[in-house]
This record gives sequence, structure tokens and C-alpha cells, in this order.
Amino acid sequence: MSVLVVGSLALDSIETPFGSVKDAIGGSAVYIATAASYFSSPIRLVGVVGGDFPRAGMALLEEHNIDLDGLEIIPEGRTFRWAGRYRYDLNERDTLSTHLNVFETFDPKVPDSYRRSRIVCLGNIDPQLQLRVLDQVENPQIVVCDTMNYWIERKNAELRSTLKRINILILNESEARLLSNEPNLIKAAKLIRGMGPEVVIIKKGEHGSLLITERIVFSAPAYPMENNFDPTGAGDSFAGGFVGWLARTDDSSEENLKRATIYGSTLASFCIERFGVDGLADLTYLQIQDRFRAFRELSRFDEE
Amino acid sequence: MSVLVVGSLALDSIETPFGSVKDAIGGSAVYIATAASYFSSPIRLVGVVGGDFPRAGMALLEEHNIDLDGLEIIPEGRTFRWAGRYRYDLNERDTLSTHLNVFETFDPKVPDSYRRSRIVCLGNIDPQLQLRVLDQVENPQIVVCDTMNYWIERKNAELRSTLKRINILILNESEARLLSNEPNLIKAAKLIRGMGPEVVIIKKGEHGSLLITERIVFSAPAYPMENNFDPTGAGDSFAGGFVGWLARTDDSSEENLKRATIYGSTLASFCIERFGVDGLADLTYLQIQDRFRAFRELSRFDEE
Repeated sequence: MSVLVVGSLALDSIETPFGSVKDAIGGSAVYIATAASYFSSPIRLVGVVGGDFPRAGMALLEEHNIDLDGLEIIPEGRTFRWAGRYRYDLNERDTLSTHLNVFETFDPKVPDSYRRSRIVCLGNIDPQLQLRVLDQVENPQIVVCDTMNYWIERKNAELRSTLKRINILILNESEARLLSNEPNLIKAAKLIRGMGPEVVIIKKGEHGSLLITERIVFSAPAYPMENNFDPTGAGDSFAGGFVGWLARTDDSSEENLKRATIYGSTLASFCIERFGVDGLADLTYLQIQDRFRAFRELSRFDEE
Repeated sequence: MSVLVVGSLALDSIETPFGSVKDAIGGSAVYIATAASYFSSPIRLVGVVGGDFPRAGMALLEEHNIDLDGLEIIPEGRTFRWAGRYRYDLNERDTLSTHLNVFETFDPKVPDSYRRSRIVCLGNIDPQLQLRVLDQVENPQIVVCDTMNYWIERKNAELRSTLKRINILILNESEARLLSNEPNLIKAAKLIRGMGPEVVIIKKGEHGSLLITERIVFSAPAYPMENNFDPTGAGDSFAGGFVGWLARTDDSSEENLKRATIYGSTLASFCIERFGVDGLADLTYLQIQDRFRAFRELSRFDEE
């Protein structure tokens, strides 16, 4: 099935206790599309870059057969830049700088060839832009959406409008508490489901994630990583693996949503093993399946 | 199989956002023994109380068929008292006061009838006292130990001696990081295994727990609680359910350690549904089995 991905393309400067990179290829759309590309095609990208977006970034997307008809290139503009530093245990990060550049005036245009995409994945961008994308697509089967504390605080009304038009919201644990104003995550998910999405996925970093529907709570473990180098993009890789699996299988049953959640966790675990998008660049489907099975072993127990 | 439990018997004054209790029956030995009593007998208790320990506390232990030959009663003394307050999300608590009272001079004496106990569960007390208990038992099959940040910081050398003589250490995530001086929990568990215990269990509160042996990492989910009233005793209830299941089955294979971890989580989930030990007081084995199965559903997924 076809997947439309909208989000940022960025140059990230990242400092972790294990090293640093400058102007590495990143952005939510890059992580989501690359992760999803292992499962299904076409993966269609909507985004914007400046003339300084490196050739290697284009090559990465092309090698993963990502449809770039919706990628706007502004030759005289500069690509969105983000710089951040992780603390010693990698669980917290400080943003050092954000330069929106060409993203400041970004107005997503969905090419005609993308309009009938069956799955839409709205990366973490301004909810008004997410809405503008939804206005340009025809009756998608599943809309998956990511967001963040910044939009919850600054564009709450707009975000609430977006939430009414999506099926699955993916957010992290502090965002879930902030959006619902409820510390208990199970209650928070119920409240968020009342805002629109039938399904809520709460990511908890090193503690795994929760998939919550009207009828089930599914607890997905995190992969036990000894080599967690760089968490940048892990959440977007999760979203990419998740929508990729749904697109591959065309099955939105609860049993399959559980598998999609594990595939999301699988892609996130590969992502954080290396800096930036390097962890997603050269995977094989066999590697992905092996790790999926390792996730199964991690939480499997028998009654007798 | 027989289980010897040593730990505190206390009167706890607890404040949570949902209410408060004063001088409620508590203490690690009470929680551990009560939780374990649902699985196996005899459960033997070593501890000390003052003349003020309420009749209801004795009744609770007697109703659960707990062997009290090792319970020292000092009629003129006062029972150990603890007071604490939980913050709004129940994940953090502040100790308001601690009065050791009769616990200050506690010197555990293991009755002759207890010396051949097959499983020893060392509740969270001074590691020197834990050692003194081990000196009085004959070749136990399994020694399970709990500890806390206070002992890691103040009695590190003594704790290290205890760790050399135990099989399974149960501790929480911040304690694991403190003891190993390593933020990554998988690495931390490896380092702690190097200090003595073959098996390390890291409790992560609302995020479940990790069981780590030489060969496996098992990720146990937390039960999705909407009514988390009072986390007091949850860790001790976990230890009680864990050793209780091991005593019932006499099987320390990795597969059975996984089940024991889930039974520990099961008893902890019942504990936090009510104040103090109330959540453990009137369970049935059928209720426990039903929740064990609910844990299985919570993390189960199929490959196809």
C-alpha cells in the first residue's frame, strides 16, 4: 500500500556522551520514510529543503526508493537546522539551537500523484500544516500522527482540530500527560482517545511503549540496548516502522497493530545504535525480522 | 517448600493524593510474607515488634498461616514507625519521619525450626543483619535479597559482603544505577551480577521490570492500573509473590524465573490498588491466576 509522509528534512548537530556530529542528515520525514521503506512501496515524501541539502541526503532517500515528487527544493534557501545535546544517561536532551530557515514558510503541497495515498503519516510539524496536508488527500484509510510538547502548548486549538481527523496518535509519555493533564498513562490515553484518535501509542523510551485502543492495552518492551549511541530520530523511526508494517499487510486489526508496534520498536532500536540516520541506512529485511523475533523472546513466557 | 522471610514490621503513616492513613500495618516482612503465603507454606517470619503492634497486625499474619516463632515481641518497646508522602503522580515520595524504635537494636535470631528453610528472602534491612541471618541458616537452596539506596550509600562494604552470598538481587532502577555507577540498565545488571548474584531483577515501577541472568533478558510489563492508590509495599509484594512462586514450584529454571517475575508483578499490582496491606489481605488464588493471565495478554503478540 502507498504511504504519504510529511515532515521535516533537517541538518542536525548532535552531541552525546559518546561523540558528536555536525550537520548530519535528519528530520522527521527522513527517518519515517527511510524506516517505512523496508516494508512497503511507494513511500511518498512531502517536505522542503534548501540548496545546501547535501547530495548524500538525496542519495539516501533515492536508494530507499522514496518518491520525491513532493520534495520542494528552494535553491537559494537554507535547510532547517537543529542542534541538541544529550545528558549522560541519554534520557534527557537540551535543544541548543533551532533555525527554521526554509521551513519557516513551508506550505506543504501534495502532488496529484500522491492524493490517493492509502496511509498518511503526519510527522511532528505544526498541526496547521498537518491539517493542510489532510485537506489535500482523498479519503485515506489510516492517518497516523506524531506531535510534541511545543505544539501541545503553543498550538493547542489547532492540534485539537488535527486530532479530530486522525486515526492513530503516537506521542511520548510526557506529551501524553501534558495533552491530557492526567499523570496516569492509562487514563491519559482514554482522555486522548476522546479527542479523536481511536488508537493511542505512548512511547516510553528505554521502557518500551503502550498501544491503547478501545478494547486493549498492549505493552511492548524496549530492546535491551547496551549500545545506545544517539536517540535522535528514534521516535520517527518507530512511526516509520509502524506505518511501513501496516502498509505491507493492509490489516488494521488489533493483533496486527501489536505487530506494527513491535516493528516500530524494532526500527527505533536499529536507529539508536548509530549516529543520526546511519542506523537505518543499510538494513536488510532479514535483520529486521530477526530483531522482531528477539522482541518476542524478550517478553514471552508460558503459563506452565 | 519452606520460605524464611526477614525484614521489618512497621506502623506506616502514608499520604497520597487520594487520602491518608496513620499507623497502618506495614513493613517489608509483613508484605513479603503475606504475598508469599498465597503460594506456599510454611512461610516463616523473623522480625521484631513492640508492645504497641496492633492485634489486627498479628491477626493478618496468623490468618495467612505465617509461622511467627521467629517474631520477637518487646512488650515495653515501640514498633518501628515510618511516615511518607507521595507526590501527585505517585512516582516519587518523600520520607517525613523514621523512628527505628525496637528495630534500632534488632538482632535477628533464627529459631532452630527455621534453620533448614529452603528459600531465604532477605527484606530491605541493614546488610549486616541480612548477613547475620545467613549465618544462622543451613545451606539454603535460594537466597533472594532486596536493598535500597540508603544501604548502598551508607553500608556499601557490608552490602558487598551480602551480595557475595545471595543468588537473586531485587532492586529498583535508581538503586541499580547507584550500585553499579552505570546509567545503562543492561550494563548495570551485568556489573551487579559480577558482585555475586547470578540473577538480577530491576523493578521499574509503572514500567514493569527486567529479569537478567547470564543468558537472558526478560522484560515484564506492568499491569495497566487506573487505580493506583498507594505504592507502599509494592516492591515487597513483588518479592513475596516471586519467592512464593519459586517455593510452590521448586523450579529455578529461567522459564520459571520468568513466571515468578510475573507472579511478583501480579502481587504488586494487587498491593497498590488499596492502602497499606489491604490490597494483599483478602485475595484468592483464582484472582491471582486470573491476573497472571491478564499479564500474559498484555504483552502477547503473534508473528503472523
